[in-house]
This record gives sequence, C-alpha cells and structure tokens, in this order.
Amino acid sequence: MNVLVINCGSSSLKFQLIDAESEKVMAKGICERIGIDGQFTYQPAGGEKEKSAKPMPTHTEAIQYVLEALTNDKTGVVSSLDEIGAVGHRMVHGGEKFASSVVITEEVKKAVEECNELAPLHNPANLIGVEACEKLMPGTPMVGVFDTAFHQTMPARAYMYGLPYEYYEKYKVRRYGFHGTSHSFVSKRAAEVMEKPYDQLKTIVCHLGNGASVTAVLNGKSVDTSMGLTPLEGLVMGTRSGDIDPAIMEFIAHKEGLDIDGMMKVLNKDSGVYGISGGLSSDFRDLTDASLAGDKKAQTAMEVFSYRVAKYIGAYAAAMNGVDDIVFTAGIGENDDIVRSQVCSYLGYLGVEFDEEKNKGLRGKEEELSKPGSKVRVFVIPTNEELAIARETMALVK
Amino acid sequence: MNVLVINCGSSSLKFQLIDAESEKVMAKGICERIGIDGQFTYQPAGGEKEKSAKPMPTHTEAIQYVLEALTNDKTGVVSSLDEIGAVGHRMVHGGEKFASSVVITEEVKKAVEECNELAPLHNPANLIGVEACEKLMPGTPMVGVFDTAFHQTMPARAYMYGLPYEYYEKYKVRRYGFHGTSHSFVSKRAAEVMEKPYDQLKTIVCHLGNGASVTAVLNGKSVDTSMGLTPLEGLVMGTRSGDIDPAIMEFIAHKEGLDIDGMMKVLNKDSGVYGISGGLSSDFRDLTDASLAGDKKAQTAMEVFSYRVAKYIGAYAAAMNGVDDIVFTAGIGENDDIVRSQVCSYLGYLGVEFDEEKNKGLRGKEEELSKPGSKVRVFVIPTNEELAIARETMALVK
Repeated sequence: MNVLVINCGSSSLKFQLIDAESEKVMAKGICERIGIDGQFTYQPAGGEKEKSAKPMPTHTEAIQYVLEALTNDKTGVVSSLDEIGAVGHRMVHGGEKFASSVVITEEVKKAVEECNELAPLHNPANLIGVEACEKLMPGTPMVGVFDTAFHQTMPARAYMYGLPYEYYEKYKVRRYGFHGTSHSFVSKRAAEVMEKPYDQLKTIVCHLGNGASVTAVLNGKSVDTSMGLTPLEGLVMGTRSGDIDPAIMEFIAHKEGLDIDGMMKVLNKDSGVYGISGGLSSDFRDLTDASLAGDKKAQTAMEVFSYRVAKYIGAYAAAMNGVDDIVFTAGIGENDDIVRSQVCSYLGYLGVEFDEEKNKGLRGKEEELSKPGSKVRVFVIPTNEELAIARETMALVK
Repeated sequence: MNVLVINCGSSSLKFQLIDAESEKVMAKGICERIGIDGQFTYQPAGGEKEKSAKPMPTHTEAIQYVLEALTNDKTGVVSSLDEIGAVGHRMVHGGEKFASSVVITEEVKKAVEECNELAPLHNPANLIGVEACEKLMPGTPMVGVFDTAFHQTMPARAYMYGLPYEYYEKYKVRRYGFHGTSHSFVSKRAAEVMEKPYDQLKTIVCHLGNGASVTAVLNGKSVDTSMGLTPLEGLVMGTRSGDIDPAIMEFIAHKEGLDIDGMMKVLNKDSGVYGISGGLSSDFRDLTDASLAGDKKAQTAMEVFSYRVAKYIGAYAAAMNGVDDIVFTAGIGENDDIVRSQVCSYLGYLGVEFDEEKNKGLRGKEEELSKPGSKVRVFVIPTNEELAIARETMALVK
C-alpha cells in the first residue's frame, strides 16, 4: 500500500508518498506561500525537482496540485488516486487526549480542536490539511500521528510543574513534549542496531535541529523530555531561549518596555544560539566557521548549546537511574561533529568511551560513535519522521 | 575577637555575636516589624529568650537596641562596644563586581548600590543596615559577605542564557546564583570530613530550605548553580515555581487576565510545593503528614521536589564529568529523611550506596549517609551562614 504523508502548516504543506512495503519514497514536495502567491515544488524518486508558481488561495488547491502531480502522465508515480491507500497526517498537539496515533473520525477532529489553544499556530493548520484531503479523497482512511503522543507515558513527577494545581485542572498546564515521532523512531532503531529488546533499554535521544529536545526513553516509553507545555522550553535552540529564569521576563520587559507578547517574540525569534552569537546566525555551520575564525560570541553560543545538552543527558541518566545508549539525530545531531564531540566530552563518568576518529566528519549516516566495549553506547541515527508516520498509518489501516 | 553578624531585610534584622576564636555564639536575636510597630527578640548564650515590643521607626533604632542588649548589665555578653571587633554584613547581590567578601568602604557601598536593580528588595535593605552600624559604631571595620560571590567562578557556558547577547552587555542579565555562603561553607566542611583536599573534589551541594538551590563545586570552585538572575529559577521550592516553560507565563497571563507583575506574584508566592499540593502547605512536615494520610497532591508535590533535585544532581555530575560527594543541607536537607531517601533512590547508577538505616530519622546532625565503600559519598552537613560570615569577616580584618 502507498501512504501519503502530509505535514500541514499555516501557509505550507510538505508531503511524501511512501510505498509502505518497501518503505521507499516514491515522490515528495512542498507547497509554500499558501494563501499568498503559491509556490509548488515536486520531485518524483530519481527524477528532477520541479518548482513552479501556482495559485493556492487555500490548502484545498494545494492538495489538488499534489494529487495531480502524483497521478499525471509525465511526472506521476501512481496511475490513479486509488493507489493511495491512506493518508498519514502529522498532528502537533494531542494534549492528554491522544497517547497514540488514531484513525481520524469526526470525533477525533473535535478532540484535536479542543487541543487548539495548546498549539494555536499548528493544530488548526493540521486540521485544515485533514479536511482538504477528506474533500478530495473521500473514503480514503486518514490517520493522525501526534508529536506529543509518545510522551504521554511520562509520570506525574516529570510532567507536573511547580505551579498552582488548579492550572493543571482548569487549563491542562503540564509538560507535553514534542518531536515524539522522531524520539520514538530513533530510540526503536537504536535497540535494533544494538540487537537488544526495546523494552529493556535506557535510551537518551538528542533530537538536535533548529528546534531541539532530549528525551529519556525507559523500556520503550518516554519518561521525561525537555520541551514542555510548548516547544520553547528545554535546550537552547536556533532562535529559541530554552530554559531561563522566569523572572527574566519581568526584568527585560520592564527594561525594554515590552509586554508579555513582546517578550514571547524575543524568546522565540531573537534568542537561542542566534541571540548568544549577537545575531550572527542560528545555523551551526555559520557558527562553526565564525568560531574557528576566533569569534568569541559564536564560540560561547556553541559551548552553551553543547553544555546544556550534556546537562540534560546527565539529568535523564538520573531520571532513569542509568543509561545504556545515547543517540544523536536531526540536522545538528546527524551532521555536526563538533557539537557531538563537545557533548560527549562531559560524559566519561557515565562510561562513555567516545571515538573521536569515527565522529570526525561524519554526516547524516547511521554510525556507532562509541568504542568497542564502551559501557554506554553512542550512536548517530538519522531520523525519518515521514517514514515513522507512514508506519503508524499502515499499522492502523491495513 | 568578637564579630557581630547582621542580616538585614527591609523590615527585619537578624543578628548574632560570635566569638571568632571559639566560634561560639555569644548572643543572638531578631528585630522585626521595623518601621511598623517594632518587635525585639534577644537571647544570650545559655540564657532565656526575651521578647518585647520596642519602637523602631528605622533600622538605626533597631541596631541601637541590639547594641544596648549586648552591652547592658543584666543580659549583656560584652562590657562595651569596644569588645565588638568587626561587623559582618550579609549582602544579597554583588553582581559581577564582587567575587569575594570585602571590607566596606564608600566605594564598595556605591558598587553595591549599582547592583540594586538586580535585587531591588534586598540590596537597599542590606545597605541601610551597613549605614546604621556605621553611625552607631564609628571606626569598627565592616565586611560585606555576598550570597552571589562564591558563584562568580562559573564559566560563561554555565552563566550565559540563550538570550540576545545585548541583554548581557546592557543589563548584565546572566546566571548569578545565591546561597553562596552556605554552598561554600558546606562543601568545605565535606572535604574536611572526607579528609580530602578541597581543591581536588567534585562536590554537589543540595541546599534545600524554603528557598532551595543545588551547586556544582569543582576543585573548590562553584561551576554551576540552579538559581539564576534571581532566586526564582531552579528547583521547585516552598512557594516558588523554579524552572518552567517560559511560555507558560503568556498562557496563564492570558487565561487569568494577569500582567507580568501579577504572574511574578503567582510564581513567587503561590507556586512550588505549596501550589502543587493545592495550597495545602509549603512546609514539608505538613506535606509528609498529608502524604502518609494518602493525599495524592501532597505526594505528587514531594515526588516532584525530590525528582527535580535528583535531575539537578545528574546534570551537575555531567557538568563536572563526575561527582565524589553529595551533601544535603538547610531545613529540608538536614531534617527530611523522606526527601533524602527519594532523591538518592535515583542515584545508584553514579555509585551511590545509600544507607537507609542511618538516614532514617536523622535530623540536623552531621552524618555520612552512604555505606562504607560507596563510590560517591553522601552527607548531611548542617549549614551555618552566620558562622561563615564571621569567618569571612575575621579573615579580612584580623
């Protein structure tokens, strides 16, 4: 069966058509500037990438172009829509309602809508994508795969904040965590590579991209994760602050004449390694170049980033009373050997024997980075959220 | 020499007169409700505690009562003010200006004043105490001992937030840390007890009181600590939230119709274990009683508290690439065997062999809680900030 994977944002829509048996990508692309001027990018496996301007007043037209491109005579990869057996939708926030993926029904859509205020930018867009697909592919089963679902196994001691209890009761203010699909995919793969049962491992996954989070996976279940109610908490990220003294918001707001919304913009858009580097860049390649050229702020930005990752690894080793394997994934985790080396330089006490030679220059490839006999094993495992969504979808519709 | 130790708040003033040679407390007390209706409590060593209403329009009158009580015929412990060789003042915030204690001069007072906006409630009160003493004891040397000084050895990777760099340059927004006098005193004492050189140890101090912080002390120097720009960050405390997703401030503020100042009140006064327990209590004795009686929220509050301490210990083990000893101190750390046991239940992986028998019922006494041969040693060491201030004062004036 072929599964269409859709990741729908407020003005963009990423897609992949995946052959669920071979797990090969048949075609992929992105619709951008939906509701503005419309930009369509499409690439069949082994073919050329096509980019063209297309009018897309709404997500429905965007999906129309996607389905047309997948089925047309020239660039199509299937002969008709009947060959698309299911659609898997990435959903950002499932609140406490969804602890796993789910076949989408009217009831499910209503429940997702009830989580809208926890992710006001993402959930409504996800639902628009679902409804556009329903309109154009009636009868095709749809599955929702939630970023938060994998973390629903966290115990209360990990998800409760030190806040008035009524905020949890009234507003469901708690830690949810994100990147769940990635943390789940990567931790499972690590168990396969180690040839150990997934439900008997203590794994720490470092999903380090422009958004970044660390998760403690105990016996196959997420027991703690660094993002919180929203994806702002935790690690220092590309442009997001991560953990700060909450009193800083008051201090800066008064100094700079900002209200809470103004502060949120600073913490989400102007902070992180971009902020520490004095606005140089949120891209670690730029920061590395500047560091090597002697830029002190860029060096500090990278050191803070790596140090915070190491501290979360340490904290989660305590959370699980030990760790068997540490996995790096996503853009920075898969590609940045300096960050990986900096992080692991703190971890000798855990029994990590890091192989600097194997690490050096390694980019985007599954590889073990610990030396033979290392008590704690270290891996790079490329994440593949689309494939994970396709698998979840298949498991529910086949 | 006798040293008068003064801890001056905005409407209160605690004091101890300490014989610096024997390190014995000669007399102690507290002036409360300064500027309101005035309440004076005084107790000479071995004598009765006296409590009386006294008019104290300003701190000057308060200190007048202190000096009178210390020298009068009936309850005094010295025959004249000449027998008070120096005064040690607890100062809250020394910013980046003070990395150690200092003899107070006009210049020092100006520098402390420049840190006022980092601790607007505390620093001005501390300075009022200094000036009142100067007026009444002209010529007696005064020493300032800063809560932040011990942490000034932190490296940039530990003190920099993931914020725009200009906030550090313009406003000195960074991690400072507090309880420094206690962390320093207790970590030094642990080295003595272990008969190891202080400058060759990796120590983690858990100062767990109504305010609570954890510090990583590497070779005698603070290299990271859980409080930040202010004492709000870090552990879940009595009524303070500690670490939260900064986006929660926006979320709750909008829900509850609060501005930033209103949110700060919630996070400082209505949160912490008091908040999690549904407003039951910020006192761990009450929480323990309620927990044992089956109160779920009280149980969660204690579990969250202990879990967060354990995670900080884990994080700081990573920060130092190892740990030799873990020390509990302050009200909860010295007296609450349940919390200590909960915290240490996470730490087996570090090589902590915790002696539940020795822990049980131990209150306020210096004791080792790890078993003989434990790779990481665990101690209870009662803190004594007044004695630490007296020692710092002596070292500078003798």
